[in-house]
Formats: sequence, structure tokens, C-alpha cells
Amino acid sequence: MLSIAIDMDETIADPITKAREWYYRDYGKVFSEEELYGKTLSEALPIDHKGKILEYLNTPGFFRDLAVYPHAQEVLEELNKKYKLYIVSAAMEFPHSLKDKYDWLMDNFPFLTWRQFCLCGDKSLVQTDIMIDDLIRNFTHFKGKPYLFTGHHNVHIQGYDRILNWEDAAAKLL
Amino acid sequence: MLSIAIDMDETIADPITKAREWYYRDYGKVFSEEELYGKTLSEALPIDHKGKILEYLNTPGFFRDLAVYPHAQEVLEELNKKYKLYIVSAAMEFPHSLKDKYDWLMDNFPFLTWRQFCLCGDKSLVQTDIMIDDLIRNFTHFKGKPYLFTGHHNVHIQGYDRILNWEDAAAKLL
Repeated sequence: MLSIAIDMDETIADPITKAREWYYRDYGKVFSEEELYGKTLSEALPIDHKGKILEYLNTPGFFRDLAVYPHAQEVLEELNKKYKLYIVSAAMEFPHSLKDKYDWLMDNFPFLTWRQFCLCGDKSLVQTDIMIDDLIRNFTHFKGKPYLFTGHHNVHIQGYDRILNWEDAAAKLL
Repeated sequence: MLSIAIDMDETIADPITKAREWYYRDYGKVFSEEELYGKTLSEALPIDHKGKILEYLNTPGFFRDLAVYPHAQEVLEELNKKYKLYIVSAAMEFPHSLKDKYDWLMDNFPFLTWRQFCLCGDKSLVQTDIMIDDLIRNFTHFKGKPYLFTGHHNVHIQGYDRILNWEDAAAKLL
């Protein structure tokens, strides 16, 4: 059975919608899809607000109730039958997120067990047959097959096989 | 630079002394070294108290102030200069331990960064050149060089190169 490592943020969990809402709450500004195209949310912010995103992500509870990406639940449930599936998140930068991420996974993916969760700092020690991730830096030391999960910030990156969304993942991997 | 994965519990952190103390607090019984020789603490307990250890380990704060193994700090500081060092703990069974383990590492190993921490359920996705662990089940899928870190519960296991303590690790790896 092949193994597959699946990222959390901007792959199955949506922190961007919540961060945009909190930024609107604090500064009254709504970022459009156009303003974020080809950029991370931090890159789109004015220079003196860059630290705000880190402050949001460090807030206890921020990661606890994020929206799940469309169709992630049913597709992961099927992938979990066909592959040795792991959820791998570079979460250690935000230590308050650790328990929130565990609880969020238990709530939204009840067919997974804690044995399948991996919260790390750096993904360079993770080796599986397949990895799905929205950040190419997580592929630097990876020896398996990488799939870049498409998001607003990576649309200009070339040279990787992509997964566009979870319906596309089902077509490619199931 | 070779990479090395180092376990936490019963390798650099001592949960057994604290669990024995809590068991004494609750039941007035002190386990001797002889009673634990060749056994885990759970194995040494009477049948109707087996669940107590899991209850202790699930208590918020249990892992926050564990004793550090002798010489672990100075030897890891040197290993950190020679190897790409990761701390890898199968911590996910005890979700309340996650933040406690992060804080404990930051307090006791200030020369490490969060990028080097990995808290997982199952170590089968972790691949480094060397792994030091007190549980041989963590070596099942491991392709690098395993070193069994000696503890009371694994004294009868044969067939692995051992590290007896952190002075021995320094002699073998530095």
C-alpha cells in the first residue's frame, strides 16, 4: 500500500478566509481574489501590517474552527482506504495551534486516527510515496512524488504536477 | 551532514519517575528498580490499575516539568553541531502533551528551534540517517541506523546496537 502525506493549511483547512475576516475586523479592508492572486496574504498586506498575520495564527483557537476545503472529507475518506494516509502539518511555528489542529482533525475527519497525524517544524524528515502540499519548500528534501495543491499564492509556480482541488485529487489518485 | 532523530520519553525526558510518584500518592506503593526490570510501568501494575498510567499521561501538565536525562543537554548541544538533529516523539496519543512537550523542549534545549521538533502518532513516516529510541516498534519501518536507548523495559531485547546513556551516545556519535 503506497503512503501519502497530506498538508493541512490551504490544502484541507482554510486559514485565509478567517485571517481576511479578522483583518477586516481590525482594519476595515477586504482583500479581493484579484489582490491575492499570485501572493500570500502577508505579501498582499501593507508593510506595517505584515506582523498581523503571525499574530492571528498565534492566537489560541484560531485553527480550531477553520472551514474544511470542499470535498476534502469524502475524498480523504476514500484515499484512506487505498493509501497509508498521514496528515502532515508544519505547525510547530504556532505552538498554540497544536491541540487545536488535533481537535479539528478529530472533528472533521473522524475516520482518521491520531496515529495518522504528524505536527512538525520542518517536513524534511518526512518520507512517503506521495505528498500533497501547497508550498514547494516542503518538497525540497522529499524523495517521493510531489503534487502541488493549487492556491492563490502558488499560481505562478511552474514545474510541478498539480492538484487543483479535491475533485481533481479523486480523479488523479483514486 | 547526517540527520538524527532523537526520541523524548525515556530517552531524554523521564516520565517514569513522575508516574511512580503519582502512583505512590494514589496507592501508597513504591515500585523498586527490581520490580520494573524488564517491564514497562504498566506491565508492573496490578491488573485493575493498568489504566492509571494512561490517565496520568493524559493529564494536562504531566509532561511540562519532567526531569531531563543525565547529560542529555550537553550531548545534544554537541550532536546539534555535527548532525541535522530532530526531536521526534510519538506524542499524538496524548493531545494534552503537545504544547507541554514544546514548552519543555524550549526550556531545556534552548539551542534547538521549533523547526527541529516533530510530534507524530506513528514514526513510520520519519526517515533520517540515525534514530535513537527506547522502543523497537519505532524501528519497524525505519531505513536508517537504529540505536536502542537502554531502559528498564527493554533490557531483555536482543539484536540492536544500544546506547546505554548520553555519555555512551557521546562516545559513539561525537
